[in-house]
Amino acid sequence: MKFKKHVFICTNQKPAPKKSCGEEHGLALVEAFKQALKDRGLQVDIRAQKAGCLDTCALGPSVVVYPDGINYGNVQLSDVDEIVESHLVNNQPVERLKLTF
Amino acid sequence: MKFKKHVFICTNQKPAPKKSCGEEHGLALVEAFKQALKDRGLQVDIRAQKAGCLDTCALGPSVVVYPDGINYGNVQLSDVDEIVESHLVNNQPVERLKLTF
Repeated sequence: MKFKKHVFICTNQKPAPKKSCGEEHGLALVEAFKQALKDRGLQVDIRAQKAGCLDTCALGPSVVVYPDGINYGNVQLSDVDEIVESHLVNNQPVERLKLTF
Repeated sequence: MKFKKHVFICTNQKPAPKKSCGEEHGLALVEAFKQALKDRGLQVDIRAQKAGCLDTCALGPSVVVYPDGINYGNVQLSDVDEIVESHLVNNQPVERLKLTF
């Protein structure tokens, strides 16, 4: 496995009035995750990157963390540090943002 | 976990002469995976989708399968059925395409 954790952030934009994660918000999230990982020197072991639709549009902005297979919904920029610290560094998923299927 | 297997296909395009997976080839691969899954009625349990750069550009076209964390390189349209049948359906990764790090 190339990365200990691999974070995919939806940057998909659907035509209104369909709800979608949104290119703008998604790309801001990607940058925030990348910066948070870089600040901690984790960018070699943990990768955050953009992805197309994760099929959880109505619950977005959407993020999925592998290999754990944990989906997060309604992720805001203010949630990034908590996801990085709690889940990516300390292996404790952020329960309040977890999507269950 | 929303999907039993989640396949991310790089559709990233970098300016020449840098090698990259390429938007055109990547999107063709995404469509081929989606069709192969649909043909087998697997599209609810297994998702194939586009992603940004998987950080294996020089070895692309690149694909990663989670939760297994298996990266494939130099993936061609003619490899899609084998990856679907062998790995996604029968859990036997395609050794000849696997990238090791």
